[in-house]
Amino acid sequence: MSAMAAAGDAVVQHVLVVMAMEAEAEPLLKRLNLASVPCTVLHAPCLLYSGTYNGSTVSVVTNGKCGRFKVDNVGTVPASIATFVAINQFKPDLVINAGTAGGFRRKGATIGAAYLCSKVCNHDRRIPIPGFTEYGHGHHDAQTSPNTAAALGLATGIVSTGNSLDCTDTDDKLMGEHGTSVRWEKPRRITTLQAYLLDPPPPTPYPADATVKDMEAAAIAWTAELSGTPFMALKVVTDIVDGGRPTQDEFFENLATAAASLQEKVPQLIDFVVGKKLSEL
Amino acid sequence: MSAMAAAGDAVVQHVLVVMAMEAEAEPLLKRLNLASVPCTVLHAPCLLYSGTYNGSTVSVVTNGKCGRFKVDNVGTVPASIATFVAINQFKPDLVINAGTAGGFRRKGATIGAAYLCSKVCNHDRRIPIPGFTEYGHGHHDAQTSPNTAAALGLATGIVSTGNSLDCTDTDDKLMGEHGTSVRWEKPRRITTLQAYLLDPPPPTPYPADATVKDMEAAAIAWTAELSGTPFMALKVVTDIVDGGRPTQDEFFENLATAAASLQEKVPQLIDFVVGKKLSEL
Repeated sequence: MSAMAAAGDAVVQHVLVVMAMEAEAEPLLKRLNLASVPCTVLHAPCLLYSGTYNGSTVSVVTNGKCGRFKVDNVGTVPASIATFVAINQFKPDLVINAGTAGGFRRKGATIGAAYLCSKVCNHDRRIPIPGFTEYGHGHHDAQTSPNTAAALGLATGIVSTGNSLDCTDTDDKLMGEHGTSVRWEKPRRITTLQAYLLDPPPPTPYPADATVKDMEAAAIAWTAELSGTPFMALKVVTDIVDGGRPTQDEFFENLATAAASLQEKVPQLIDFVVGKKLSEL
Repeated sequence: MSAMAAAGDAVVQHVLVVMAMEAEAEPLLKRLNLASVPCTVLHAPCLLYSGTYNGSTVSVVTNGKCGRFKVDNVGTVPASIATFVAINQFKPDLVINAGTAGGFRRKGATIGAAYLCSKVCNHDRRIPIPGFTEYGHGHHDAQTSPNTAAALGLATGIVSTGNSLDCTDTDDKLMGEHGTSVRWEKPRRITTLQAYLLDPPPPTPYPADATVKDMEAAAIAWTAELSGTPFMALKVVTDIVDGGRPTQDEFFENLATAAASLQEKVPQLIDFVVGKKLSEL
């Protein structure tokens, strides 16, 4: 058996769950009886937890709190630091990002619905230069997991990440559906700056076709990719992005419903994946 | 002398220069004869360099390249990882972010002009929930450095950071001038969700009043703040944000001019700060 085949068939013995907010993580920490673990690097704002569960190891990292404004460090930058620190410390076999998100009614999303992520993109990294465009959009595939979706009765969907809670027209356009046959193009190589200036490339399509909009997943997927750690995401809908109401109002109204759904689904997901080969997910 | 006074009077003996792109860093690395240094943590995409210069230590970190699209890892997430890794490895006394940026004509910016940053904000982190709003905007003060600006003949200005090269109307509104007397407000405490829902706070003003628009500075400042490392930024204008032409076209046309200005100013800045007390900057 080749090393590659062995990696593809690796058994999940250590799961790292990445959650942005402490309030999202607390019920899970209690339920799985995970203990706080000191961070081995200095100056990391994230909070680490770990313990054994069903014969495997489950670790959790949250983004930590902002020292100045006392709120959770939401968004891509702290999520990336948290994931980077936790992967280096725990060396997990699988990263699962779990949290609340906005859902698109046009894709059938409803309040409390849970989605298993098939791919993540960024909708707020618009860089119209060849290569940089594709880098900005990201398009990170999640771990293939049809058996997981079937066993847990989860719908699957594309998650698009941005650092704002709202959704501008520009954001919406980048997250919308651009037809089923559109694919991102391989970047064209710029041989010289002159060649670029004489022959600027056409705008690259962004077929995000997102079902869910969040604030961390793409950064977590990018960070997991640095170490080749497989990535999954479970997102529960707290608000309808294309429903006409401000996200922040819906978010608070539905947080309890979504949190209950999240607390039901995350342990189910952990139960299903631990001890299995990646190819069995 | 108290510990606080001692810290405020710390001598700059090790400067860390954070630059997003390798092409921006190469002339500086040659000029200061800095050598590549292995990274002490696994899976970091950034590239580290260090050496002695004028009796002090100068280190440089760049964001590294994207393994998939072979472009520089621009934007806030890789810049934060690079800064985090380099601060932990080098333990610098001062972080200087140097690079190219867009400038606002309405604030007097011209192509090739160099600015010393007085404050950095984020213009793409809109989170209309009390506390989170202010966290999102950031407003990180740079190290006070009137003598540096005077000695180098540098204008000062506020830098606003976002992950996109373009500038939408929403971005522009957040970066624009809101009057000179407007200040960010201390966040109101939410005692209960009900209180928030019954009495939503007014939108917090965002008096960015930005002179310069970049893609990394605020994330670097946030990361430096985690370890209490003082932060400065030097930005050279490659394009006029409010000039009516696409940034990507101007960027390539003016890159050589801006790069020459950057290569002149960054060593001057390093020469000025090394060996000085922070209070002398």
